[in-house]
Amino acid sequence: MRADPQSFDRVLSSMCTEPHPVAREAAERFLATNPGDPATYPTVAEREERAVSLLGDVAGLDDPAGYVASGGTEANVQAVRVARNRSVTQVPNVVVPESAHFSFEKAADVLAVELRQVPTDDDLRVNLAAVHEAVDEETALVVGVAGTTEYGRVDPIPELAEIAHDADALFHVDAAWGGFVLPFTDHDWHFGHAPVDTMTVDPHKMGQAAIPAGGFLVREESLLDALAVDTPYLESTSQATLTGTRSGAGVASATAVMEELWPDGYRETYERAQANADWLADALAERGDEVVEAALPLVAADVPEESFEALRDEGWRISRTASGELRVVCMPHVTREMLEDFVADLDRLG
Amino acid sequence: MRADPQSFDRVLSSMCTEPHPVAREAAERFLATNPGDPATYPTVAEREERAVSLLGDVAGLDDPAGYVASGGTEANVQAVRVARNRSVTQVPNVVVPESAHFSFEKAADVLAVELRQVPTDDDLRVNLAAVHEAVDEETALVVGVAGTTEYGRVDPIPELAEIAHDADALFHVDAAWGGFVLPFTDHDWHFGHAPVDTMTVDPHKMGQAAIPAGGFLVREESLLDALAVDTPYLESTSQATLTGTRSGAGVASATAVMEELWPDGYRETYERAQANADWLADALAERGDEVVEAALPLVAADVPEESFEALRDEGWRISRTASGELRVVCMPHVTREMLEDFVADLDRLG
Repeated sequence: MRADPQSFDRVLSSMCTEPHPVAREAAERFLATNPGDPATYPTVAEREERAVSLLGDVAGLDDPAGYVASGGTEANVQAVRVARNRSVTQVPNVVVPESAHFSFEKAADVLAVELRQVPTDDDLRVNLAAVHEAVDEETALVVGVAGTTEYGRVDPIPELAEIAHDADALFHVDAAWGGFVLPFTDHDWHFGHAPVDTMTVDPHKMGQAAIPAGGFLVREESLLDALAVDTPYLESTSQATLTGTRSGAGVASATAVMEELWPDGYRETYERAQANADWLADALAERGDEVVEAALPLVAADVPEESFEALRDEGWRISRTASGELRVVCMPHVTREMLEDFVADLDRLG
Repeated sequence: MRADPQSFDRVLSSMCTEPHPVAREAAERFLATNPGDPATYPTVAEREERAVSLLGDVAGLDDPAGYVASGGTEANVQAVRVARNRSVTQVPNVVVPESAHFSFEKAADVLAVELRQVPTDDDLRVNLAAVHEAVDEETALVVGVAGTTEYGRVDPIPELAEIAHDADALFHVDAAWGGFVLPFTDHDWHFGHAPVDTMTVDPHKMGQAAIPAGGFLVREESLLDALAVDTPYLESTSQATLTGTRSGAGVASATAVMEELWPDGYRETYERAQANADWLADALAERGDEVVEAALPLVAADVPEESFEALRDEGWRISRTASGELRVVCMPHVTREMLEDFVADLDRLG
């Protein structure tokens, strides 16, 4: 069997993208290394320390701790695990916006915690009064999303942090997708804007690293103690990661691309992506489609149901929100020309 | 920062190895794909189906179900999660040999199950009477190891399966490391030898795939239902994996290398590795070191404590068992010449 993966020419549905050339080069060089075994593979372990330091720069955190995870799901699961393991109640609960990624449902199943999903407002950000109401003495964690998967919305992070800490709960920000664009906006979202305890911020999404390179950051190294498991035979004393063997390719590519692009390259990427999103939103609105305002480079719009299959038959990779809207993620590989072709196809087929 | 990863010339401590050239080639081609989103990345999703089919060939399972996991830890966690989610008791327990990998301790913490660790006999295989004693009505899972991390031992798999099923528990085999050498031995270890329910068998260890490529197999597809979480926006209905975004590089490299090497190439690799292990065991015994018989290509031996640091200073990557023995894993990159150099250094330094 020999088949080439498809190109990204028509991929509008993914939160992943083509790795930056320096990310690809580093991934290929470090393909055979395992940062999960730092005594055997010290070079990649050093690069992981550098990656965490760079993630701290992105997320407004001096002296950061954390690691390069397999992706946003692992990082979100670990945030819930830290909070659960520190909680003293019998059945801890986790309060998340209904707009949060489905990895929190996975985390709730895996970790056996109660998930309390709170509705969003008309602006698609979490309703603070509803969060207040959902939080109680058994709440171990409150979650805010900085760049929602479906609409690119940023929850009111400082207000959520206050609610969490008033209840003695930890506060987690899921910036898996948004973390590499938000530094160039006016949003309050990171460790410097609010007392965030833990954060998911993934190099392998807008950060243009190679998969797998998620990011898990904690304000204090001691928060990781809640995750430590002893590791006989490895010559390192304990392991806080969810997985064991890990991808050196992901770690090395994340370090390389952050060194290359932070901050100016990421700013340029963001500006181009946001301009593309604004252009697409305008073009769809001109067609008469109902468009959700693009707060970040992600456009959702009501297009005719029958258009979906026709566009897919033309090779477009597109996806829908839970409400059925077309959802286009303006990742770095998405060019203006692609979007012009897409709208032309929509006009012709819809 | 530009640093090359170390070569494998002196790595004796790792259960990972240099990817086979066809694995590397496939990993590089599929670096930008995500099998966690099969609607967007159908080509790599097809390759994953093929990988699972090939893993079934390796593990004696017709019509296999499962997926390519991030590694053995994820696969072991998922086996425990299947059993826990199907269990109806309040605090399910999991019975594992004390020789099992530390990922079961991680699984127990993550999944909030009780871990019952059972001693091994003088032959370093689990004591069956002790397993009998540990199992009760609340036992959700019994684990057998086919190729232990420290001594390469194979537990009595058919007998363990019987104990598990008599107690209405599921039975899991951890063949993460052993799975790609055991087919060429006389051991009873796989789905064809006993009613195994779930298995960990990792292409990225003796299978010579690129990291991350673990393997999780289940006898019946329905066992995966216990893991399913809904996935809005992804255009696929649900997800049974622990992670979300996954490495297409790992999946594609696993498929490519299994197609290349199964079965003859793996047989040759095994025979060379076992011959190397036997040679090393003999050489250490001749020196007067106490050597544990190498049932699989993994040698453990008592060498003087002061030799460890001296060998490390020479660049050797070595590790110890929990009892302090030197542990050398004869992976495919480990040549006879490397071992000769190693023993010469040991003679000179020890």
